[in-house]
Amino acid sequence: MIQLALIGIGTGNPDHLTAQAVQEMNNADLILLPRKGSAKSDLADLRLAICAQVLTHPVRIAEFDMPIRDTGGDYKRAVDDWHEAIAAAWRAQITTHLPAGGRLVLLVWGDPSLYDSTLRIAKKLKAGGVTMQVRVLPGITSIQLLTAAHAIPLNPLAGAVTITTGRRLRAHGWPEGTDTIVVMLDSGSAFEVLEPQSITIWWGAYLGMAHEALEHGALGDAGPRIIARRAELRACHGWIMDVYLMRKEQI
Amino acid sequence: MIQLALIGIGTGNPDHLTAQAVQEMNNADLILLPRKGSAKSDLADLRLAICAQVLTHPVRIAEFDMPIRDTGGDYKRAVDDWHEAIAAAWRAQITTHLPAGGRLVLLVWGDPSLYDSTLRIAKKLKAGGVTMQVRVLPGITSIQLLTAAHAIPLNPLAGAVTITTGRRLRAHGWPEGTDTIVVMLDSGSAFEVLEPQSITIWWGAYLGMAHEALEHGALGDAGPRIIARRAELRACHGWIMDVYLMRKEQI
Repeated sequence: MIQLALIGIGTGNPDHLTAQAVQEMNNADLILLPRKGSAKSDLADLRLAICAQVLTHPVRIAEFDMPIRDTGGDYKRAVDDWHEAIAAAWRAQITTHLPAGGRLVLLVWGDPSLYDSTLRIAKKLKAGGVTMQVRVLPGITSIQLLTAAHAIPLNPLAGAVTITTGRRLRAHGWPEGTDTIVVMLDSGSAFEVLEPQSITIWWGAYLGMAHEALEHGALGDAGPRIIARRAELRACHGWIMDVYLMRKEQI
Repeated sequence: MIQLALIGIGTGNPDHLTAQAVQEMNNADLILLPRKGSAKSDLADLRLAICAQVLTHPVRIAEFDMPIRDTGGDYKRAVDDWHEAIAAAWRAQITTHLPAGGRLVLLVWGDPSLYDSTLRIAKKLKAGGVTMQVRVLPGITSIQLLTAAHAIPLNPLAGAVTITTGRRLRAHGWPEGTDTIVVMLDSGSAFEVLEPQSITIWWGAYLGMAHEALEHGALGDAGPRIIARRAELRACHGWIMDVYLMRKEQI
């Protein structure tokens, strides 16, 4: 029997871990870390640095090569195939390192509930016959760090908020019936499709890290500034993770 | 100069605090706690218990009587008046305990960005002439504890999520263009207004606490069960805090 704990670790600052997360990492029989391409290698290193900082005694850590997602064809199909490949990689590690079962920990950026695939991958593993109990330990998300950095509320008073993706914003425009949206997974700058009038944007990259970058203002002014800064920062660091919130003034 | 830190403390489990939150509480010159009516007194006690558990040395704690919100008349106006009254109560405490300025800490359930008023109240205080720097430290929200307890993702794969209130759900029905909604601040059972067919609900109360209660299932079955359990638990504990997520099957 595998007891899998999916632990939200925030966005890279070890001080954002909860006491529960630290405890669970220390109780693990195995911590499994994905190794990605070299461009994001400082992210893998960051997970190792977090382990080094919070583990109070030696815990076995295994790294596995993260399968690469097919970027052509149908998006959902490609993602599903990718998840199958990741499940197979986990399974190989479990067979090698925990043949008799045990406590397995996976460290998830942000929170395992939000635009993360580990819960879906764990489901595939169970469907494939691995006996497994899954527990989720929440972590601070990039959305929370964005609103914290700008010291703004997420929702308008008594209002609603929609969390969406760059892809959806591009395809469908501003969602109906909501004045506030948060856009995640936007590798382009999907806000460009919007009529900027009466929209304010709050943007953040590398949130919670030493090189955190923030911008905010009227979308017409701040939008081009954000596009330029994203390009510059991505070139400088080799990767970027960012998120933004936009509010429409009620007219 | 007042340095105000708004610290998200999760929903009552001290193990959900981040290392950053614990550090900031220990560095405070004053921790200000609201005292509410007796019905919620175990919530006030819980804040004191959290302080007792995480403070490594004596920190001054002051309690103030939380003004009561007018429940009649216009909702937004009543909330605004209430915020003014709370700002006045903070100001009185600051004048008494931090006449020369210092580090002031407020402990916020969940995360200060999400359906919480402290940021708006701090703004009123600044507008009223108090020289103040505001920092926000994120905390685990009830939404995160809900999805963690049920081990479900918040968003459908590549999909959007809308976070809304019981009041809005009652007034406007299911929001357009989204298959997943989270409903907060629902003192009734606003899901009753929905046609339950093809909707699944995941509900949780007292999340993260010892008496956490969970229900989930098809809305037609689980809805009446949740209504009965809410009434029972509210009678038993004198108060209830709960939240739920609903998903519509794509047809």
